[in-house]
Amino acid sequence: MRLRNKPWAEEFINAHPEIIIQNPEQYKGKWKEVFQNDQPLHIEVGTGKGQFVLGMAKANPHINYIGIELYDSVIVCALEKIVEADAPSNLRLLKVNGADLNKYFEKNDVSRVYLNFSDPWPKTRHAKRRLTHEGFLKIYESILIDRGEVHFKTDNRGLFEYSLVSISEYGMLLKYVSLDLHANMPEDNIMTEYEEKFSAKGQPIYRLEAQFIKE
Amino acid sequence: MRLRNKPWAEEFINAHPEIIIQNPEQYKGKWKEVFQNDQPLHIEVGTGKGQFVLGMAKANPHINYIGIELYDSVIVCALEKIVEADAPSNLRLLKVNGADLNKYFEKNDVSRVYLNFSDPWPKTRHAKRRLTHEGFLKIYESILIDRGEVHFKTDNRGLFEYSLVSISEYGMLLKYVSLDLHANMPEDNIMTEYEEKFSAKGQPIYRLEAQFIKE
Repeated sequence: MRLRNKPWAEEFINAHPEIIIQNPEQYKGKWKEVFQNDQPLHIEVGTGKGQFVLGMAKANPHINYIGIELYDSVIVCALEKIVEADAPSNLRLLKVNGADLNKYFEKNDVSRVYLNFSDPWPKTRHAKRRLTHEGFLKIYESILIDRGEVHFKTDNRGLFEYSLVSISEYGMLLKYVSLDLHANMPEDNIMTEYEEKFSAKGQPIYRLEAQFIKE
Repeated sequence: MRLRNKPWAEEFINAHPEIIIQNPEQYKGKWKEVFQNDQPLHIEVGTGKGQFVLGMAKANPHINYIGIELYDSVIVCALEKIVEADAPSNLRLLKVNGADLNKYFEKNDVSRVYLNFSDPWPKTRHAKRRLTHEGFLKIYESILIDRGEVHFKTDNRGLFEYSLVSISEYGMLLKYVSLDLHANMPEDNIMTEYEEKFSAKGQPIYRLEAQFIKE
């Protein structure tokens, strides 16, 4: 997600190193030091304006969360929300590219990856940029625990169809699929900003949970 | 599908042994004898009124088809259509229970299984009756060639969600998924009677192709 440039964003981001992690490569394999506990770590790749990851962190204090977002103009919105919510101690943000996760995490660092309303990249020649492309699945597997999970929500039919096939071809196990999440809304569903907007229009929200299988 | 009893059905069925195969157990492993050629055999489990299997047989003369349907009152409709269409030589019907396929087919007899608008059996205690339940997948695998495929269409969201998970848990590969078949209608799609009715109402038709993986 890109928003127009916000000149004050950089300054606000720099003023909150306790939330947006500086020099994250130093914590590779040592994320427990950041949170100062042994809780499992769940990350959201493409965290956008942060409503989902903040809601999850508040609802699940026994889990650590990192929201990952590349763009200053977007992550600053998540940062604002988190500051306003008194910055739960189990939540951090990371301003990096999802394609570079290997620089910051190693095998077993992460227990679950969330992907929410990711860019569909509808053109075939951009398929490699889809966050459920084989190349990304390989990255997630390399930083997740054994049998780690990917949880994915989207309103984009084409991206969801692509993801089902890509995940199956990779050899992952589909554990749960919903083709209209809000028709039978799970009690613990935390909505993203997009999700609120699209579901209000009556469009179906697709969701899946997939698990890597131990070799 | 059950229709009300048709007293003339039995007589009409018995009058067409060239289409509805008598004593099918005798052809187990020998279906080439029935068709008198070496073409691959595709079967439809739950063939209903026969529009799909007849359309496929006419469109693909290089493939043999068997439509399988248990109920007299339903299979007689398929039989009527086939007689009216001058009974393509690559098409037969079988009046048996899908749960008994092992009695009539053995490993490598069948190249593809079609399931179209199968009964959703929505109650959890009836899950074993769903044609994509593990028990049925095991039967299909036992009569299909290696890497044989199951092609499945339905308008029932719950059954499709269940099937995606069941097929994945079984270790099959999803090769293709459509969550709104008619939004991008494949040129070679042959519609069933149900499909025409439901899609006319604007309801999405779900479709998948799955493949067994060689051990």
